[in-house]
Amino acid sequence: MSAQDMKKEIPYKIYISENDMPKAWYNLRADMKNKPAPLLNPETLQPMTYDDLRPVFCDELIKQELDDTTPYIEIPDEIRSFYKMYRPAPLVRAYCLEEKLQTPAKIYYKFEGNNTSGSHKLNSAIAQAYYAKKQGLDGVTTETGAGQWGTALSMACAYLGLDCRVYMVKVSYEQKPFRREVMRTYGAQVTPSPSETTEVGRAILAKHPGTGGSLGCAISEAVEAAGNLGNYRYVLGSVLNQVMLHQSIIGLETKIAMDQYGIKPDIIIGCAGGGSNLGGLIAPFMGEKLRGEADYRFIAVEPASCPSFTRGKFAYDYCDTGMICPLAKMHTLGSGFIPAPNHSGGLRYHGMNPILSQLYHEGYMEATTVKQTEVFEAAEYFARVEGILPAPESSHAIRVAMDEAIKCRETGEEKTILFGLTGTGYFDMVAYEKFNNGAMTDYIPGDEDLAVGFAGLPEVNL
Amino acid sequence: MSAQDMKKEIPYKIYISENDMPKAWYNLRADMKNKPAPLLNPETLQPMTYDDLRPVFCDELIKQELDDTTPYIEIPDEIRSFYKMYRPAPLVRAYCLEEKLQTPAKIYYKFEGNNTSGSHKLNSAIAQAYYAKKQGLDGVTTETGAGQWGTALSMACAYLGLDCRVYMVKVSYEQKPFRREVMRTYGAQVTPSPSETTEVGRAILAKHPGTGGSLGCAISEAVEAAGNLGNYRYVLGSVLNQVMLHQSIIGLETKIAMDQYGIKPDIIIGCAGGGSNLGGLIAPFMGEKLRGEADYRFIAVEPASCPSFTRGKFAYDYCDTGMICPLAKMHTLGSGFIPAPNHSGGLRYHGMNPILSQLYHEGYMEATTVKQTEVFEAAEYFARVEGILPAPESSHAIRVAMDEAIKCRETGEEKTILFGLTGTGYFDMVAYEKFNNGAMTDYIPGDEDLAVGFAGLPEVNL
Repeated sequence: MSAQDMKKEIPYKIYISENDMPKAWYNLRADMKNKPAPLLNPETLQPMTYDDLRPVFCDELIKQELDDTTPYIEIPDEIRSFYKMYRPAPLVRAYCLEEKLQTPAKIYYKFEGNNTSGSHKLNSAIAQAYYAKKQGLDGVTTETGAGQWGTALSMACAYLGLDCRVYMVKVSYEQKPFRREVMRTYGAQVTPSPSETTEVGRAILAKHPGTGGSLGCAISEAVEAAGNLGNYRYVLGSVLNQVMLHQSIIGLETKIAMDQYGIKPDIIIGCAGGGSNLGGLIAPFMGEKLRGEADYRFIAVEPASCPSFTRGKFAYDYCDTGMICPLAKMHTLGSGFIPAPNHSGGLRYHGMNPILSQLYHEGYMEATTVKQTEVFEAAEYFARVEGILPAPESSHAIRVAMDEAIKCRETGEEKTILFGLTGTGYFDMVAYEKFNNGAMTDYIPGDEDLAVGFAGLPEVNL
Repeated sequence: MSAQDMKKEIPYKIYISENDMPKAWYNLRADMKNKPAPLLNPETLQPMTYDDLRPVFCDELIKQELDDTTPYIEIPDEIRSFYKMYRPAPLVRAYCLEEKLQTPAKIYYKFEGNNTSGSHKLNSAIAQAYYAKKQGLDGVTTETGAGQWGTALSMACAYLGLDCRVYMVKVSYEQKPFRREVMRTYGAQVTPSPSETTEVGRAILAKHPGTGGSLGCAISEAVEAAGNLGNYRYVLGSVLNQVMLHQSIIGLETKIAMDQYGIKPDIIIGCAGGGSNLGGLIAPFMGEKLRGEADYRFIAVEPASCPSFTRGKFAYDYCDTGMICPLAKMHTLGSGFIPAPNHSGGLRYHGMNPILSQLYHEGYMEATTVKQTEVFEAAEYFARVEGILPAPESSHAIRVAMDEAIKCRETGEEKTILFGLTGTGYFDMVAYEKFNNGAMTDYIPGDEDLAVGFAGLPEVNL
């Protein structure tokens, strides 16, 4: 069949019907022979139980966090209704990109940016807010760095009538006033962190009066605030297994759309920060691979400045720099590792989701790094050709997808490439401006930088 | 049929298939008994001919501008391919809004914000850029105020490999650096206006060294620049009949989607600045009304601060404050009218598209005004309930749609309300911040303010 004929068959954008949308999330752990290691209590270094976790997290979400055997978990009706407001997300055939690259490869991307939070984060935000509401809580607390997660959670809480308190890293709070205003428009209370509202915050302010804050500190404040407020719990936008469960909606929709058109991807590519998008996108495909039903090549793309997979260790580590959250066994650069100020805030995290870490450890997926100037070159190229201004995070996947498509041009192979386009870059124009002005630089940590992080890894004997 | 059953039948979002997308634009003028009056030459005050217009506009676009008899004009394949990158736009059933308002009304909106320009402007930008390219031009020039049109044109030009020069009102250039960067990312050359690059600009700068510029001045600079650059033409994002022709894609898609589900709107509502979105949305429905095939109630919503329909005169006037562009017969506040700094930059224009002006004059449609604090109240409500953060311009339509739905709650009528949601408010957070802080005020011009504009209306004897 000629390329022209294919064009007639496969539309530019595949929207599955609302009736075909998934009715259950897929829990990849159920198909893993070697389950991800359990979370550990930061004080005792022993596996955390349901009861250990209850003071911090919502009950139903703890169950999901600990459940590594149930393959499908039903999506409640209320969440499915909310999903229908902005989903299904389109699976886009990148005809224009293919043509410009003159590649025989077929390129598809799942676009998660068509909602006001601007990313896939909303998929888990509504789920977490729903279970909090159902438990009868008054509200939830969280932290946000770049602001996508905070925005998504604000939207979900506004919809459900739940109070939302966001601790936003102070430097972001000041540099990204627009993100802050979106959250306020959705009724969230946004506090620059560190703040005077918590003990942790006051202690840090006393020690470092002029500090711009950090994600680690904001997490600690949000956790403490949930406790102080009473009928509140803390929620988190990435890294945790429950988040990956909710994000499986991305991969499930993609698979349904592809199956409807008889498309089978050869390579599946996603950017990797905490792993929520990558894990969600690949989940059902990885499930097939684990069950021996199909084979795919999976590529995780991380920034050269924060290479948890490619240069990290597979070890137990703290999820936060404050060391008050549970420990997870994961690929990590150490909770004391300080990533350079790369513009992809969503990928600036020292660790990686435990499920993905386990799978990478066992060789089920690959990982690669890209430098941020290469990433912005790809982002700009993509924006001009496909019309969507991508988030810097998402553009890591674009870069590698383009590279793979160019390889196909050289070898003549007609591979089918799928990547996750997690969101839009409308609130990242400071970074684009730097790139447009030729003022962007790259950061690659030296071994001595990594050594600092590794030195802080806890000793765990289980 | 119960409301619950209806929900099952009509999805949250209706996407027509790419094969069902319109293959021709609809030219409403063909169905008008009384055609809109011709454009006049600003020097001779005589009707402009094709040859008169050639130095400024692209040839094919002039033909479209002057054609008031051909009902359907084919959309070239290349434009249809581009449309498929971001269209069809969803027709959304606002189930959540209906529920929150407890109204028996059925509310639909056509959402044009799912593209990087953030609005419907891209529909005409790609058409205008395409004809410029086809004519063998090197590039196009234009002006932009808030930045939507400039962004849309930059995207279209980047796609076609056409040079794009945007004169951006200086105060916007400085206050909206992110909009400017999006345009630069798409390769456009953005110049703050007034500038030293044109005679007009230099003259204004000499007279008013510290001026923040105006749309009228930016238009004059863009027109002059097109002439100076040689193989360039000037293009415009609203007001002209050709723009309304291209924007008919909005209404055509809406009608196709509604027909597929047997939906007939009772009321159709759109915000009105220059008229491009309103005219595009209502075109095929108004065509039916003009041909006596169906009846609809049309409501144009304009800001109380710039009431061209409701308080303007139906008269010949200049399209620009510089008085170098052709004159159009339209509802106008006078080209010398200075609108208050309302946050809906896209509605801050003294005149109105001649087609819509004629139809309003003959009683085929209604118009109403709303104050901007009422508009932002509606915008915030809508954002929380429907998940989309709307542009301030679009929120004018939301306000009136909500008001009509609330009337239905009171009367019990099950009216079907359709409105145009022209775009997103991601670059309007300064306005939202003002609203969130309770610092937003309303502007209603007094009769003496209007008298200033009316005093400048030219005398035309035809």
